[in-house]
Amino acid sequence: MREYYVLTVHPFNKKIPVRKGTDLLSGLIKGNIFITSSCGGKGICGRCKVKILKGNFSTEPTGKITEEEKNKNIYLACRTTILDNIEVEIIPETIIPEKIEERPFEKGEEFYHIKFDFKERYNFSPLTKKIFLRLPSPTFEDHLSDYERVIRSLKKNYGNYEYKIDLPNLRKLPNVLRNSRWEITITICNFKNAAEITNIEPGDTSKKNYGIAVDIGTTTIAASLVDLNNGEILKTEITFNKQASFGDDIISRIIFAERKDGLEKLHHVVTETINELILNLSKTCEISLNDITTVVISGNMTMVHLLLKLNPSFLRKEPYIPVANVFPYIKSAEVGIRISPSGILAIIPGGYPYVGGDITSGIIVSGIYEEESLCLFVDIGTNGEIVVGNKDFLVCCSASAGPCFEGSGVKNGMRAIYGAIQKVKINNEKIYYETIGDTQPIGICGSGYIEILNELFKNGIINRNGVFMSDNKRIIDVDGMKEFVITEGIDGEKIVITQADIDNLIRAKGAIYSAISTILKTLGIKFEDIKKFYIAGGFGSHLNIEKAIEIGLLPNLPIERFEFLGNTSLQGAECYLLTEDFRKISEEIIKKLTYIDLSRSPIYMEEYLKSLFIPHTDF
Amino acid sequence: MREYYVLTVHPFNKKIPVRKGTDLLSGLIKGNIFITSSCGGKGICGRCKVKILKGNFSTEPTGKITEEEKNKNIYLACRTTILDNIEVEIIPETIIPEKIEERPFEKGEEFYHIKFDFKERYNFSPLTKKIFLRLPSPTFEDHLSDYERVIRSLKKNYGNYEYKIDLPNLRKLPNVLRNSRWEITITICNFKNAAEITNIEPGDTSKKNYGIAVDIGTTTIAASLVDLNNGEILKTEITFNKQASFGDDIISRIIFAERKDGLEKLHHVVTETINELILNLSKTCEISLNDITTVVISGNMTMVHLLLKLNPSFLRKEPYIPVANVFPYIKSAEVGIRISPSGILAIIPGGYPYVGGDITSGIIVSGIYEEESLCLFVDIGTNGEIVVGNKDFLVCCSASAGPCFEGSGVKNGMRAIYGAIQKVKINNEKIYYETIGDTQPIGICGSGYIEILNELFKNGIINRNGVFMSDNKRIIDVDGMKEFVITEGIDGEKIVITQADIDNLIRAKGAIYSAISTILKTLGIKFEDIKKFYIAGGFGSHLNIEKAIEIGLLPNLPIERFEFLGNTSLQGAECYLLTEDFRKISEEIIKKLTYIDLSRSPIYMEEYLKSLFIPHTDF
Repeated sequence: MREYYVLTVHPFNKKIPVRKGTDLLSGLIKGNIFITSSCGGKGICGRCKVKILKGNFSTEPTGKITEEEKNKNIYLACRTTILDNIEVEIIPETIIPEKIEERPFEKGEEFYHIKFDFKERYNFSPLTKKIFLRLPSPTFEDHLSDYERVIRSLKKNYGNYEYKIDLPNLRKLPNVLRNSRWEITITICNFKNAAEITNIEPGDTSKKNYGIAVDIGTTTIAASLVDLNNGEILKTEITFNKQASFGDDIISRIIFAERKDGLEKLHHVVTETINELILNLSKTCEISLNDITTVVISGNMTMVHLLLKLNPSFLRKEPYIPVANVFPYIKSAEVGIRISPSGILAIIPGGYPYVGGDITSGIIVSGIYEEESLCLFVDIGTNGEIVVGNKDFLVCCSASAGPCFEGSGVKNGMRAIYGAIQKVKINNEKIYYETIGDTQPIGICGSGYIEILNELFKNGIINRNGVFMSDNKRIIDVDGMKEFVITEGIDGEKIVITQADIDNLIRAKGAIYSAISTILKTLGIKFEDIKKFYIAGGFGSHLNIEKAIEIGLLPNLPIERFEFLGNTSLQGAECYLLTEDFRKISEEIIKKLTYIDLSRSPIYMEEYLKSLFIPHTDF
Repeated sequence: MREYYVLTVHPFNKKIPVRKGTDLLSGLIKGNIFITSSCGGKGICGRCKVKILKGNFSTEPTGKITEEEKNKNIYLACRTTILDNIEVEIIPETIIPEKIEERPFEKGEEFYHIKFDFKERYNFSPLTKKIFLRLPSPTFEDHLSDYERVIRSLKKNYGNYEYKIDLPNLRKLPNVLRNSRWEITITICNFKNAAEITNIEPGDTSKKNYGIAVDIGTTTIAASLVDLNNGEILKTEITFNKQASFGDDIISRIIFAERKDGLEKLHHVVTETINELILNLSKTCEISLNDITTVVISGNMTMVHLLLKLNPSFLRKEPYIPVANVFPYIKSAEVGIRISPSGILAIIPGGYPYVGGDITSGIIVSGIYEEESLCLFVDIGTNGEIVVGNKDFLVCCSASAGPCFEGSGVKNGMRAIYGAIQKVKINNEKIYYETIGDTQPIGICGSGYIEILNELFKNGIINRNGVFMSDNKRIIDVDGMKEFVITEGIDGEKIVITQADIDNLIRAKGAIYSAISTILKTLGIKFEDIKKFYIAGGFGSHLNIEKAIEIGLLPNLPIERFEFLGNTSLQGAECYLLTEDFRKISEEIIKKLTYIDLSRSPIYMEEYLKSLFIPHTDF
């Protein structure tokens, strides 16, 4: 016999029916309340803290809850079993933000300033086109069938492709043709020498053809609304990937996917996150979802597997095999993405289990595949992926960095948008900082953390190991954890960097730096041989390269060799929408790319340990 | 407020809930009881007679019911409105037979003796193949993705096609591969230079690959089960098309389709009829539906439109435009045909609204498209289609003949199977006849009717107009209608030919003969110029050409110029399944074919009127 209890969640006053014996984290997820859980509910990360107000429950002992927290009735949701109707309160810092506020991105924010102008390099040829046709009505002399009549006109007006149509479109064809007096708009999705008729509309709707480019990151998801008639990026939005409730990193997500219904849940959460972004973009730009014909996805292999509901299990098991590298174009409705009902979804192909379409994008956007001289591309996200090469060869590797440069997994972290502290200067106990948009500070973005780490070290406030060493008055003690106070936020709460934050940041920068040094050593290349060093990632406009070098995130090369490209994964998805050249090159790139598995590299661990210092050292 | 009544139908004792005011014919159809209604429920044909046992109803006056019938409480179902719970009894001769009994067809029956041996002309290359692959399991060195691993092996073992896969198959790929230790069977549907992966199965199932060839006629539907590994036709079955409840001819069906839910009903009835045939074939041959990978449909354009649920309306309105001539390959499940869930359905392309894939089949099977000398092909069905031409040109036309040569619309008509009277010799009042299989007689098939008509005329029992003229004792009078008694049937009931049957047969033979003479006159060709005269249709093995000439169905040419080919539409569907050559040629044929619209011909009506005599005359 099943028994159900009611889980009441404050401050939302949401009531969720849960089965007896459910753990609290699963109960919250069931009610679509997503709180951080870096380990995916295994009781390891200690982040899914919840305050229990009322009700009967059992909870496992854990070192992750302080005495003070216990006194406040704070417990780990994943370790707590519901035994009766229960009321809980969500702790604000654990909640995965629902949505970024709606307003246009401005100078200094992510995505704004760096926009890859594909038209300089490639032809404009969108993945999906709308063709307006004015057909002659049939006569006894011109008695072609409806479909052959459309094809004749398409061959004349559009091109001599091998056209295809599906049954639903064939079914609506005769009535649409006659009700619109033989004036119709055909939506066509091109791939190679084939052309798929995806929709037929009465009249001339050819002016309304929009696409969505999506970068699915492990921690954040970004989407752009693109006008497919002129290539203009109308708006970009970004939100956190709610899959973070199932684990911070891809391995935790894959393990969660292996549970009963786990894959289904992860799939659902990511499609709903994308749907929210699309709905927001379409509302803000006053564009009907029906006029959005195409979605292009750029993401790492795990994210793509979860989106398509492909078993990701063998991505984490030796010898690490994805289900596919190149994915078929599908109907967006097949994975629950809500655009036009006849919309198409395409995925940028990926080379390796840990180097997906996001990196294919980065290789093309950075242009390293065409360069004569030796280049390095690094995409700093939850995973740091590195590509070394030029027009002759391309070698890649991947390292797990964690989400802190993306503003997640650190106490006052946030995305690089309005209100994020991005520049910092510390002079003993005095602090000067700048926020994006020069507004009141809300939190700290990735580039801000790099500057803070650098300033703390230069001022002797932390040592080479990143440990707080000074009696600087800005250092406070909270529940036995040292925190350095930057300022007071817009809500009156302190904005701080904690000892745990610093440890995370050092591990993250160390993972990336050591991956770079390992791949170069493996290839017998010296740092100095790298003539162009491209950096991608969700930083704001202001990534201080010098400070990034000084903390040991980037190698010590002449400053002019570095170029910061912004979110190349998203730019790649935009380009894939807009140019056939990009689509062709992407399939060539993945054939050309080779992979070094750091976990099987004899030198990676040594390099990593050397990099866990500021900047890094031979010990 | 809606009111429902119960319609009880004997002898099935079936109870059907019907809304107040429903006509009786619609009520029966709702309960899946299909009775003949040549006009599709318009009160014209007078065939949907039903005996009312009990209950309140209103019925419109009609000249189609005799006084005697009225006394027996027999009414037209389509003209009778249900006003209360009602009980009716079905009159056996109105019921559309459920199914032909299950037993192998034998010599003399339809389909048996004439089998087009495609292997003499074409290469064996089935539309769908199953390829067994033994894949190397992945290693760190050989780390291709699952899908690319399959493709590599297919390219090596099967051919360098552009392979495609859909999302459902991609989703099952990783588990099937690993659970079957990398031994899998891939089902591939080939078209042109593309190859669609339609299914993935564990282990070696390549020996089990079957196809279904279907001829959808207006009156009958025939289907063959084909072994796609060797091209063997395992079994053929045939049944009446239950759409006959919605009208005898295609125009009535189209008009019915224009009613609310009309298209849905016609679509449903035809798919269910096909599903029954498939189920029967698979049971008899002990083959799992899951091993049937492909269905090929050959039929006239209206039948194809109804099957695919395409609006057929514009086929009957000037200038007579089909939705398409060439149809996309679809999933059979999309139209409700139950074979393997991943099964494919293909349609043989058709040239013109009244000359469909059935005639494309006839042109190829007869081989006239390759002939040097002038040929004529006629397919005698509910429509009679005629093609004249050779390797240089192909001209076609179509005439509505009615279903009597298929054993429908005539009192004791039946298909050319066991028990059908197929040969008749009349000597005054003595009759000699032969049935197919030399069994007790059950009814009369098309070739039997041709012989009877011939013998009645030669014996002076009917005159040139087909009117009973003699005092032959075999002529009896039933409800004011003269009938000629052939014999007593297996059930003790008389087997007869009625005056109405004779009128029908003369109109049918006249429609076909005059279509032949009109197309030839239009092209300026004399009968004698036709060097080969091919006849197709659902006759048994014994079509007596001389007698067909003598009644004026066929022109008076030397007997050796005629060749009877059997059901070329079904043979075409079988060939389409089995050889790429046929598939390619079918698309070429429809481009080459031109059409003469008899309804717009200035001489057709005159030719038709001349042909309404035995054999025919200039008047």
